[in-house]
Order: sequence, then structure tokens, then C-alpha cells
Amino acid sequence: MKNNINIAIIGLGQIGIYLYKELNSKIKEIEKKTGKKIKIVAISAKNKNKKRIYPINKKIFYKNPLHIFKKEKIDILFECIGLSDGISKKIVETALINKIHVITPNKTLIAKHGDYLAKLAEKKRVNLEFEASVAGGIPVLRTIKEGLATNKINKVYGILNGTTNYILSEMESSGENFETVLKKAQKLGYAEPGNPKLDLNGFDAFAKIRILSALSFNTKIAKSKCIMEGIENIKAEDIKIANKLDLRVKLLGISEIINNKLFETVHPCLVSKNTYIGNVNGVMNAVIIEGKPVGESVLQGEGAGPGPTSSSLLSDLLSILRGNIKYPFGISSIKRKSINSFNNDNYTNSLYLRFEVKDKQGVLSSITNRLAKYKISVNRIIQTPDKKNKKATIIIITHKTTEINIKNCLSFFKKNKDILKFPTLIRLYN
Amino acid sequence: MKNNINIAIIGLGQIGIYLYKELNSKIKEIEKKTGKKIKIVAISAKNKNKKRIYPINKKIFYKNPLHIFKKEKIDILFECIGLSDGISKKIVETALINKIHVITPNKTLIAKHGDYLAKLAEKKRVNLEFEASVAGGIPVLRTIKEGLATNKINKVYGILNGTTNYILSEMESSGENFETVLKKAQKLGYAEPGNPKLDLNGFDAFAKIRILSALSFNTKIAKSKCIMEGIENIKAEDIKIANKLDLRVKLLGISEIINNKLFETVHPCLVSKNTYIGNVNGVMNAVIIEGKPVGESVLQGEGAGPGPTSSSLLSDLLSILRGNIKYPFGISSIKRKSINSFNNDNYTNSLYLRFEVKDKQGVLSSITNRLAKYKISVNRIIQTPDKKNKKATIIIITHKTTEINIKNCLSFFKKNKDILKFPTLIRLYN
Repeated sequence: MKNNINIAIIGLGQIGIYLYKELNSKIKEIEKKTGKKIKIVAISAKNKNKKRIYPINKKIFYKNPLHIFKKEKIDILFECIGLSDGISKKIVETALINKIHVITPNKTLIAKHGDYLAKLAEKKRVNLEFEASVAGGIPVLRTIKEGLATNKINKVYGILNGTTNYILSEMESSGENFETVLKKAQKLGYAEPGNPKLDLNGFDAFAKIRILSALSFNTKIAKSKCIMEGIENIKAEDIKIANKLDLRVKLLGISEIINNKLFETVHPCLVSKNTYIGNVNGVMNAVIIEGKPVGESVLQGEGAGPGPTSSSLLSDLLSILRGNIKYPFGISSIKRKSINSFNNDNYTNSLYLRFEVKDKQGVLSSITNRLAKYKISVNRIIQTPDKKNKKATIIIITHKTTEINIKNCLSFFKKNKDILKFPTLIRLYN
Repeated sequence: MKNNINIAIIGLGQIGIYLYKELNSKIKEIEKKTGKKIKIVAISAKNKNKKRIYPINKKIFYKNPLHIFKKEKIDILFECIGLSDGISKKIVETALINKIHVITPNKTLIAKHGDYLAKLAEKKRVNLEFEASVAGGIPVLRTIKEGLATNKINKVYGILNGTTNYILSEMESSGENFETVLKKAQKLGYAEPGNPKLDLNGFDAFAKIRILSALSFNTKIAKSKCIMEGIENIKAEDIKIANKLDLRVKLLGISEIINNKLFETVHPCLVSKNTYIGNVNGVMNAVIIEGKPVGESVLQGEGAGPGPTSSSLLSDLLSILRGNIKYPFGISSIKRKSINSFNNDNYTNSLYLRFEVKDKQGVLSSITNRLAKYKISVNRIIQTPDKKNKKATIIIITHKTTEINIKNCLSFFKKNKDILKFPTLIRLYN
């Protein structure tokens, strides 16, 4: 690689602008560490004159990022727009075709088109790096690809979304409800002010799980339909009850090889307060990797925000400046196999069920009878009457049962007039 | 790098023999990941015919490891003897001079001669890798060198010795004393059966701190005298009292830049049970890195044993097989600066002091008067009389004070006949 490196940054949102500032301030340091002199020669965003937290060099601004490829000689491109398709995909594709190294924090793009783009990068003998796409500042992808390279990993899981973890932690400490805490999160910049849906419904964590699986198990990115649930239905009441049971609600992403099949999921879990994962609070992310011979490895750190994300983007930059061409997923695309999916119906857990029912005789027994019919055995029942409103809350903790069993069992309660709302279900982790 | 790689393993103790087995079983996998075919062409240990957990190929055995350099063409050498000088140093030196890449888990060698050996490796344009020297299977050195490469790190600390952490955890959970638990640890293979001293007195953790500092702050390995205390004086009683105060005893290694000076230390600390570090129990290691812009990163995993160590040794091997020449400490030796040491006398902490005294009037006031003379203010006193033996235990928790102050203050108690033993001191962390 030559000594003078031209860089383009596409997208100047929260991440892009911070990266722009960091790169400009670290030119000397990067030269010291790698011997390469970087120069930002092109930037692009929707609006040239938008007020930004750092001033930009408008002489290198492009309204249309695709023009950059014709006008400038770029060596490394940062894609910071963040769409799963459209212009994000087009830019990355064009860059790779033009033998430009690409670095991106875009998890939805990689989760959707990662296999195709990796193959393209390999064909063109350039790097495609996406450390910042999972767990922000924690160098978890590099750890799997390099630090744990010869381990046989059988499970990877963790808290992969800082927004939801902040909301759940804050609901517990403040006692406030979901909506109030969400507003607080938006005010603090932890949740998207416009549309926080992709964080809340588990989609963001799920994209990260897809990427982690592919790297951990050396497989193609899976396409199968999986259990994906967010935290939108978790009520302050669930958090309070969990607290009494010495449990905490966490949104976990889990990926595991079960009987040579891949199982991926994202859903809220009840975890013990005495576990490691039960004590990862606030905006922190944590990834736990179980491998042989290394045993259990835990990586924890700030999972989002421009600082941590920029730390990972720069680590990718240094890796490219220092080294030769690497496979985007650690091994060559040809050697990454497809893997069959584990049947979700057979996923087995103990469950927490919260029913809101009419406070009248026979309701509890109709519930327990239904559970018994599906051989779902009950571990614990807590019934709290609300005499004033002629309602009652029934909490049932079950022994282990399968997804299909519980789905069939619960469907019945949709039609039952004594059940005021379809029950809230939270799986117990381990 | 050519495609057929010859490997030598020097030292076939617990680590060396496990590595030998792992390498032999992973030849195919390593070829798949790197395109390189490895072959172990030489092994060496004291005793050819010793009974080992895996059979060795005696045809490639060398009694004298230095003969290997004359007889075989080696590309990569693993040094697994583990001495800080002597034959370990000689082997690594000779290998580097002969342009052979070196991988070692030997923390005492690197902590003592790392600067010299790194310079030699750079001069000869080969790699010197030592990921396994710190925190076993946790790829913490790679994380600092690559994953957090452009961060400004100002502090790195953690639990760096699994043996002592196991002993402290077990003393708490079983209530047994140090000697009993040490025997248990030796039986389980967590502590050296012969001489566990280097684990217990903090020496092992200290070597790791020296390496972490050099990597985190881009400095030469420091040589200054530091505060190094082990866990040999921690009594079951201290653990019980800590427990009542909602604290836990942990042996922490700490390295920090204070006013542009380097402060390194290893000593037992009292940490809150509600902190992350207070919940890293058993043989686990944990390293916490504070950097900008990444924030706080935590890495936790199994810190010792052949499995985790071998995982790190193999990650170094893959890094060499995949890449080009890297600086052993992340940046070139010329650019690593010496740094002045922070004056230990000014290290400031709250203290836990346990006095065993004669149960008679005036003893407590003589202690508190002495503390007052040195302006050490008392936060809490717990006096427990032992009427039968005419003794009493006095626990004093102080407000923050400096090392020099407490040293001068405590010296007095050596001569005091009413004080039955020189007081036990444990620093409170934060």
C-alpha cells in the first residue's frame, strides 16, 4: 500500500461527523502508528449547509456521493448513511468494484447483503470491515476473527442494544412506565427522536446477532424466520414483579448451534440478579462467547454513540493501513457454509406469564386447566386482586415447555372474555 | 511467507504439551483459515521419557533446545519454559537473531526483557507475540493494540491472577482460612503445587501490569520500584468483616497515568459488592480499560490453564500466518518513550486497618491519638473484645490519606507492647 491514503466519508450524521473530526485530529497519530498519511478528500451528505457540531470543509463536499468515484482517487471509503439497501448498498458496491476499501458501521446492510459484499470484496482484493456494526466500541468481531480464531465457538449471546437496555434499567430504578422512560431516552440521545422502532422491536439487535453468528460459526448469514420480540410490551408492573423474584428483564440476542442447527433469536428474558448478564445496566452492551478451549469470554463496553463507534471505525482503518487483505468474515466466502435452521417450535424455556383477568371465581382454574391440557406444569402462581376495578393480576411461572406448546395453549385466551388482555409472556433465561 | 511452515515448541509442561496436542489436531483448520500448512518439526523439554498426558513424537525431541537452531529450519518458535532469564531468554534471543518468529506466554520474560527483545525482533523483521502472557484466553493485548488502537487510554486495571482470585472467593464462600484454601487450590491445579509464591505475593500480576502499561500508554516497560503486595496476610477474619461491610477483598493490578506520570501497583483492595469488579469471582480474570473516545471497556474470561492459554497462543500463530510483520508493542520501539514514575508516597486511599490488641483501657485511644497526629481521620471503628483471651480486635476504616502518612503513622505500632501484631492494612478501592 502506498504512503498517502485518500479517504471519503459518506454520511455526516451523528457518526459521520464525529468520525470526520476524529480523523482530522488524529492524522499525526495514525502516521506514527502505521507510517501512512491519511487525507480526507471527499465528504457527502444530503445537506451541505446544515448546522453541524463540527465545521466541515465545504470544498470537498459532494451532494451526490456517486460523483466522488468519478472525480476523486479514493483508497478507503467510510459508509455512514446506514440504510440496509438503496444508496448505502450502491455506494459500498461501487467502491468495492473500484477496488476501494470499505469501512462501515452499518449492521442492517451487512446483515442483509454481507455475503454478497464480502464475496465482491474478496474478488476485488480489497477489505470490507464492519467492526462498528456490532456492540459499538467493543472490538468483538476482531476478537472472534483473530483473538479466538482457532476456538470452536458454540454459543454467542448478550445485550446488543444500548437503547433498550437503558430503558429497562431506567424503568427498574425509577419505577416509571415504558412511554415516560422512552421520552427520557430520546431526550438524552439514547433513542432515535423520530422513529425508535428498530431499536425497540429487536430488529437492531437481530441484525447484530446475524453478523455474530456468521463470524462465530463460519457460516453464511442466515435468512430464516426467527423469534424476534422487542420490549414494547414490557410494563412497569413486569419489572416490579421481576424485582421481587430477584430477576431482571433484559433484551438478549442469542445465537447457538443446537444439534448442528443454527438457532438465532432476540427476545426479552428474565435473568437472575446474581448473574453477570443481570448486572449489565444502562447503555452498556455485553457479549458472551462460549468456545473451546477458551471457555467463557465476556466483552463489555459502551455499545453505541459516536465515541465508541468511532473507536471501532478507526480500529478498522488502522487494520487496513497496517496489514494486507483480510477476508471480511475471517475465512474465505467459498469456505463459509450454509447451515440449516433449528426449528423454533422446539425452543424450550420456563415462562413468566402475566394475565389480567376479571376478578371472579373460576378464572384461575380455567387458566390452569388450559395449561395442564398442554402439559405445561406450573412452578409458581401469584394472584393479586384489584378489588376496586374488579380485576386481578395473575402471574404464572411455568416449568420448561416448548414454543409450539405455549403458542397453541395461549391462543385459547384470545377468545376468553374473562381474560382482559392477551397475556404478557417473558422467557426465563436458563 | 511461504506455504509450509516449520514449528518448534520449547518446553512441554502443562502449557507446552497442550499446545502440542492442539496444533497437531488443528493443522487442517489452520490451513483452511490461512492457506499455510504447519508442521511441528522439533520439540524440547528436560525429560524425553517423562509420562505426559499426550504422547509425543520422540523422533523430533531435542534434549538441548539450542541444538534445534543448527539442525532444523524453523519458521515459528513457541517458548513455553517460562523463566524470566536463563534458557528462556537465550532461546528467544537466538530465535529472533535467526529470523524466526517467536510466540510466548512468558510474562516474566517480557516484563523484564520485552523492550530489548522487541527491538531485536523489529531489527530482524520478525514477529514477537505474547498475547497469552496477560489474562490467559482473553485477547486483551490484541484489543489494546488493534481494537482500541486510536484511543487515548488513561487507566487499565483488573483481576489478573486467577489463583489468588480463586483463593479469596473460596475463603469468602467456605469461611475457611488462607492455608486450607491454598491446599484446596493446589489440589485443583489452580495453584502451583511446589512454589505458589509468585502468584500469592503479587509478582505474577505485577509482570502483567508492566506489559499492559507499556501497550496502553505506548511507553517503555517501567523499572521503578512500586507498591506490590500479595494476599498472604489476608485472614478469614478480614474476609468476614469485609462481607459485613458489603465489601469484598480482590487482588487488583492497577496502572494509571497521574499528572503525566506512570503509577503501577498490585495490592489487595476492598471493593464494593455492587461493582462489576466485585463480582468477578473464582478463577476468572477481568481487565478494565478506560479510554477516549471509547469509554470503559471490560474484558472477562478464564485467565489461566492450558485451554485458554493455548487459545491465545494459537491466535498469535494465526496472526503471524495471515499477516505481515507487526511491532511487538503496537508501535515501533523508537517511538515508545520512557515515562517518569509517580511518587508512591503520594498514592492516596481510604484504609481498612485491623489491630489485634490487649484488652485494656487506653489502647484504643493510643491508636486514635497516633492517627490524629498524622491527620488521618477515622470514618468508622468496630471494636470486638475477646474476653477469654484478654484480647480485642479493632477495625478502623479511615478517610483518604497518603501512603507516606500511613507508613510513618503505623511504624509506631511496631514498638507498642499493647499491640499484639502489626496491623493488617487493606486499601479501599475508590
